[in-house]
Amino acid sequence: MSAPPETVIEALAAGLPAGAVVTDSDVVAGYSMDRTMFCPVGKALALVHARETPQVQHVMRVASEYAVPVVPQGARSGLSGAANASDGCILLNLEKMNRVLEIDPPNRLAVTQPGTFNADLSRAVAEHGLFYPPDPSSWEFCSIGGNVSTNSGGLCCVKYGVTTDYVLALEVVLASGEVLRTGRRTVKGVAGYDLTRLFVGSEGTLGVITEITLLLRPAAEQPLTVAAVFDSARTAAQAVTDVVTCGVVPSLLEFMDRVSVQAVNEAFSMGFSPDAEAVVLAQSDAGGDRSRSEIERLAAVLEQAGATEVAVADDPAEGELLLKGRREVLTALERLGTTMIDDVCVPRTKLAELVERIEAVSADCGLTIGVVGHAGDGNFHPTVVFDGQDREQVERAKRAFDDIMAISLDLGGTITGEHGVGVLKMGLLERELGQLSLDVHRRIKRALDPQGILNPGKIFTP
Amino acid sequence: MSAPPETVIEALAAGLPAGAVVTDSDVVAGYSMDRTMFCPVGKALALVHARETPQVQHVMRVASEYAVPVVPQGARSGLSGAANASDGCILLNLEKMNRVLEIDPPNRLAVTQPGTFNADLSRAVAEHGLFYPPDPSSWEFCSIGGNVSTNSGGLCCVKYGVTTDYVLALEVVLASGEVLRTGRRTVKGVAGYDLTRLFVGSEGTLGVITEITLLLRPAAEQPLTVAAVFDSARTAAQAVTDVVTCGVVPSLLEFMDRVSVQAVNEAFSMGFSPDAEAVVLAQSDAGGDRSRSEIERLAAVLEQAGATEVAVADDPAEGELLLKGRREVLTALERLGTTMIDDVCVPRTKLAELVERIEAVSADCGLTIGVVGHAGDGNFHPTVVFDGQDREQVERAKRAFDDIMAISLDLGGTITGEHGVGVLKMGLLERELGQLSLDVHRRIKRALDPQGILNPGKIFTP
Repeated sequence: MSAPPETVIEALAAGLPAGAVVTDSDVVAGYSMDRTMFCPVGKALALVHARETPQVQHVMRVASEYAVPVVPQGARSGLSGAANASDGCILLNLEKMNRVLEIDPPNRLAVTQPGTFNADLSRAVAEHGLFYPPDPSSWEFCSIGGNVSTNSGGLCCVKYGVTTDYVLALEVVLASGEVLRTGRRTVKGVAGYDLTRLFVGSEGTLGVITEITLLLRPAAEQPLTVAAVFDSARTAAQAVTDVVTCGVVPSLLEFMDRVSVQAVNEAFSMGFSPDAEAVVLAQSDAGGDRSRSEIERLAAVLEQAGATEVAVADDPAEGELLLKGRREVLTALERLGTTMIDDVCVPRTKLAELVERIEAVSADCGLTIGVVGHAGDGNFHPTVVFDGQDREQVERAKRAFDDIMAISLDLGGTITGEHGVGVLKMGLLERELGQLSLDVHRRIKRALDPQGILNPGKIFTP
Repeated sequence: MSAPPETVIEALAAGLPAGAVVTDSDVVAGYSMDRTMFCPVGKALALVHARETPQVQHVMRVASEYAVPVVPQGARSGLSGAANASDGCILLNLEKMNRVLEIDPPNRLAVTQPGTFNADLSRAVAEHGLFYPPDPSSWEFCSIGGNVSTNSGGLCCVKYGVTTDYVLALEVVLASGEVLRTGRRTVKGVAGYDLTRLFVGSEGTLGVITEITLLLRPAAEQPLTVAAVFDSARTAAQAVTDVVTCGVVPSLLEFMDRVSVQAVNEAFSMGFSPDAEAVVLAQSDAGGDRSRSEIERLAAVLEQAGATEVAVADDPAEGELLLKGRREVLTALERLGTTMIDDVCVPRTKLAELVERIEAVSADCGLTIGVVGHAGDGNFHPTVVFDGQDREQVERAKRAFDDIMAISLDLGGTITGEHGVGVLKMGLLERELGQLSLDVHRRIKRALDPQGILNPGKIFTP
């Protein structure tokens, strides 16, 4: 690096309010990583809390002038290390830019700063009878900016799609400090390239997102729920395919393998049969009679597919009870040891093979692996459980984690369905995308960030 | 240009089957334009009919070697001149690449070549109980490749979204002749940048799309229909807002102004009241009882909003009769003269203002303008009617056309909701996007097409 750190810090402070630039090494270290374990963390130069777009512009101008890397970050709830510090970087934290700027019910859209938590935005629009569907499990502590940067999913994607499907427009501060506006406030629009969706999922490598315009839906109806128990994962997997082809689009379609089911049984006395090898959960929020007829159809399909037990919840509260097991899988697995949550997505028909091959990985590495996930999308979170204090087990866990991604690629899937590549999954990206695609990625990156100062070393090597 | 035309033509022919390269000037001229009127058309060097990806690669390699512009085109049903020849270009026509390569019902996806007509693909997947929603009015004679290149919409977008929402993966031949694969076969996936959606809507300026993987839905239910007549466009516009905020998402929500209604009345004796100032049509395909309750709710909302007449179709056939008027607007207007169809999209709450300001344009230029469109998305097709033989009227029509786009921008809208920019709307793009956005467009274009040979002079100037 050319300029001494003090020069950069002085230049940052010169254009920011007192206290915005933090150099206390403990505080900076505390902001230097997201929730990803066993992922490289560098030593940042400073932490900046930005409160408005001109402050972000100032940071980018200073970073450009001195060619200093910038790592944009929100609530740091990520699971791939995309928000981790790199050596000598400025951590540009946006969690204080957390105001919902506008809710426009007649046009069914909302405008928010990036630091707003998903749950806060969701509740704010719900007060207007509106619905922001993307619902990552971390919704209470993840920010919309992070959701946009990784194109987050959740449980409702099987019916309602993922984050990118709801992003209408962005304000983005480019590497140069210029403010780019992409997209529009209209539902449709094809004027020029889809720059909005180029920034969605780009994990802070192309620009710093400072404002987000989101499309909303009318409030969904309370869902009805069906839970089905199976005596083999293969039968349950076929049942998922049967649901996908039955003509009903459920608003949720989740899968838990034996490890997950028995873990929640033990931890929370959920009362699933001790013989349960898999559980499939489905919901319908079609509304009124239609919810009832859809849930009955789903129950019939699951039963016909060979479920040993099918329970239909009579009301939303009972349904939430059935779902509780699914929601608590990770907590239950965490009681068994340290966990590494993978995030693969395969064609929906490959679920049985995925589960069986992960069982083989588990046997091979001698570690417990629970498979749980959004079966309706083919998106699973195999979770490796191990002793985090035992170096050798950590190595085995990391190998199992990588093996699971390789299996997903073998099955025609992807290494990440909704968590992103970050640092954690960079090693396998070329295998998924190929050399030419990576080359195109690098050309686009250079076109927008010629000095390579925006979150360098994330997603792909420069 | 450096190389003489004969050299380029010989090089093209050397790698292609006999007959693939056409130089007959009448045939070439016949392929030199889409359906856009009053739009510049250049003189092409040659026309190439490609039948497979390696042939497209050959064309791009030759074009790269000799720095010759290439204009990719499909069925040439476009309405912005994006497929029009530029001087000295190779017209790279893909209409013979029209095979549906795969339909995979359990994974609900289809793979097709770009030349397949939208209607053919839709019918092919319908045989498997599946549904490809995007339904541009030209669906019987537009190609999927063209739909992807312009991110086409249609009538069902209000519930089901537009083309880009259904594109999972692409095979694209780059300017260099290399074959890039983007996207995936899984429902979700966030590995790397969203290159797929960068190519969707790029109107042939970034690559030549040679294969498309599409997400499908289960077959929709037959819709029920409600038609409402209003004695003022402003009341009808408010009714549209009331529908958007009523909690029901209709599967179609269309608007016709007085000019459109009376034109179909005259042409086809549709029986709308001669006092009708506007008609709003809505459908529900929620299924079963739910369709019935939704359509009744929509009817009640329209009535409460002040409709002078509300008709609910008792069955799908009767509904199709109600829709016939909407479908025939363009044909009816064409009986009155030459037509230029605009394509603007405004925030849904701006419909009344749009109609009133277009009435002022009509009065001002002394030409009939019918406003019809996808009200649920705020996407309208104001259609200027004039005497195409009268130069002075043509000039007035073009001015009215541009005025309508400017009004859309004034109202916070876009110059194009689904037809694309092409050549026709280039002049106003900078006003919509701003100089910085155009600069980013150019940087991305250069990153992928450094010689600028892919459809140069479309969307924006180099």
